[in-house]
Amino acid sequence: MVDTLLIPGPIVMSANVQKALGSPSVAHTSPEFVAVISRVLQNTRKVFKADSKKGQPYVLAGSGTFGWDIAASNLIHPSEKALVLSTGFFCDSFAECLKLYGADVDKLDAPVGGVVDSAEIESQLRKHNYRMITITQVDTSTAVLMDVKRIADVVHRVSPETLIVVDGVCSIGCEEFEFDKWGIDYALTASQKALGAPPGLSVSMISQRALEFALNPETPTRSFFGSLKRWTPVMQGYESGKGAYFATPAVQLVNSLDVALEEILQDTLEKRWEQHKKTSDWLKSKLTDELNLKSVSEPQVSANGLTAVYVDEPPKVTSYLKQNGVVIAGGIHREIGPKYIRVGHMGVSAIDSKLDHIPRVYDLIKQAVH
Amino acid sequence: MVDTLLIPGPIVMSANVQKALGSPSVAHTSPEFVAVISRVLQNTRKVFKADSKKGQPYVLAGSGTFGWDIAASNLIHPSEKALVLSTGFFCDSFAECLKLYGADVDKLDAPVGGVVDSAEIESQLRKHNYRMITITQVDTSTAVLMDVKRIADVVHRVSPETLIVVDGVCSIGCEEFEFDKWGIDYALTASQKALGAPPGLSVSMISQRALEFALNPETPTRSFFGSLKRWTPVMQGYESGKGAYFATPAVQLVNSLDVALEEILQDTLEKRWEQHKKTSDWLKSKLTDELNLKSVSEPQVSANGLTAVYVDEPPKVTSYLKQNGVVIAGGIHREIGPKYIRVGHMGVSAIDSKLDHIPRVYDLIKQAVH
Repeated sequence: MVDTLLIPGPIVMSANVQKALGSPSVAHTSPEFVAVISRVLQNTRKVFKADSKKGQPYVLAGSGTFGWDIAASNLIHPSEKALVLSTGFFCDSFAECLKLYGADVDKLDAPVGGVVDSAEIESQLRKHNYRMITITQVDTSTAVLMDVKRIADVVHRVSPETLIVVDGVCSIGCEEFEFDKWGIDYALTASQKALGAPPGLSVSMISQRALEFALNPETPTRSFFGSLKRWTPVMQGYESGKGAYFATPAVQLVNSLDVALEEILQDTLEKRWEQHKKTSDWLKSKLTDELNLKSVSEPQVSANGLTAVYVDEPPKVTSYLKQNGVVIAGGIHREIGPKYIRVGHMGVSAIDSKLDHIPRVYDLIKQAVH
Repeated sequence: MVDTLLIPGPIVMSANVQKALGSPSVAHTSPEFVAVISRVLQNTRKVFKADSKKGQPYVLAGSGTFGWDIAASNLIHPSEKALVLSTGFFCDSFAECLKLYGADVDKLDAPVGGVVDSAEIESQLRKHNYRMITITQVDTSTAVLMDVKRIADVVHRVSPETLIVVDGVCSIGCEEFEFDKWGIDYALTASQKALGAPPGLSVSMISQRALEFALNPETPTRSFFGSLKRWTPVMQGYESGKGAYFATPAVQLVNSLDVALEEILQDTLEKRWEQHKKTSDWLKSKLTDELNLKSVSEPQVSANGLTAVYVDEPPKVTSYLKQNGVVIAGGIHREIGPKYIRVGHMGVSAIDSKLDHIPRVYDLIKQAVH
């Protein structure tokens, strides 16, 4: 019997997504595979709500982290300034990545569990010329949800030249996200989060103006495997139905992502976001109201794809759940790491009402903390 | 009915490798997964023949190409000199990768189908201080096999400080390869070649002295996702049975690679190399002696995992085979690209005598060219 996986990614896959994974070898340039990845790229536009403008999607072999490298090595020159809004561990790591590639990084840190104040962002944007601002829509370490639309509006008003980069790793597919409408320049996620596919693919989307910046011969690309100059014609070839080559894609993972995206698009994204919110609200209210556990994220800025709550003895709780066949995660945070637990509720676990994953995890946490 | 895939990677997987791929989601830090990746890392040492010294293996989400980034961004300072031995397209691409990360690259080009002369290598090594030399054991574009041992001996004698980097993408698992005995410093391959797993994993091995260089704080790592400073403690943690985290590994691909490596190690590597040679010799002699096709690679320097032969109309041949359920590859080379075909014979297709893949591909090529 396999444990029920309720960490904030990888998540439980649907039966059909899992089945597509075990597909036999096909050539990465075959008409069969090109048809699949073409559809995956088109559906990536839809899931990112990026199908009204002329952006470009990328589906590449790699972890979610690789998306940071792509942004840091293609979308900013060394020594140019980047503003990182930090609500936790993953925001801070993105800042480290930007620094490694030579960016001059300023970071605005939110208090633990809270968000960065909009007025502070506006004031900071007025101080310097920033090439890039990074917004982690949901930091998986704290379950804090940033208001990307509101921040993007501030950037467009105060510093319209600044490229808006969104880490959507724990949000795209379960939180409201509008790439085109909100005027996002680069957004990245990973296959194993709210998209519901297995881990191993970096999935991202770039705006036309950011792509022009990346493809400009004067922009010094600082990654080979992550070079948008090299990948863009390949992705464009694939999407238009032509075999193309730079590096071999992870064929079976792409097959699996194909099924996952098709499943997501069987209904509206708005409904999917609403279902995640409903599941999240239910679990959060049960944990905080009935068990009196304190949420790490402040209630009005809490993510809908995971829940982080303080408990007295996190290892005791996670062990108890594991013994009962449910896997949740411990904390990952510089200041509060050992003090809390994280429960993921994305994909089928959140939206398939035939599954009892979330009531079950609640019951087990209740037993564990009492 | 699925086509039989006889391109030089991805290759046909065994039934058990394919089955392991379709495994359900487990946490990337769970004891179950840590046990798997620990075994994978230990078996990687064995398959690279790197289990007698204190090197370090890496299994990371990414394409084979990503291994070039790791070498270029961790094992050489910007402006230091690298010597690239080129027998084809992939060697040239590795040179491009090194240049992108700032290396000062000299390239010695072999004539098409031949190898770089040892005396020329020795003479070049005496001219400059090279931080790194790259040897592509088999260039998948030309099917040329370089004598890594002989070249490594030259380097050790003439320029012992130079790090020896081997691209083993189309060789490790099917060609004689001795990481420790030959004194290799970094060797890289991809999961979907002679290892027999699906695409999406970069598999590599570093020597102790090269690792010391990479981990030295004065060595400027120029990739975040490819940083050996970040990955080394994670891989060491995994191998010793502890969960660790930098970026989420491609869990199902690792499960699949685990089965593939176990299958390889059921017999001696020497026998496996011999089986590949036997299959290769059979196909090459049939194609050249009976069909009078000219090999792209000179006979004495031909790879054992693939065959490249000139044919009059490559698209006609590949189409005919595809119509008959067998997929082979066209050429990929600056000078001779449109003039030849490539047939992969690695893994089960080469060593499982119950399969008729290679006799069948021969019969179909015979029909197609007549």
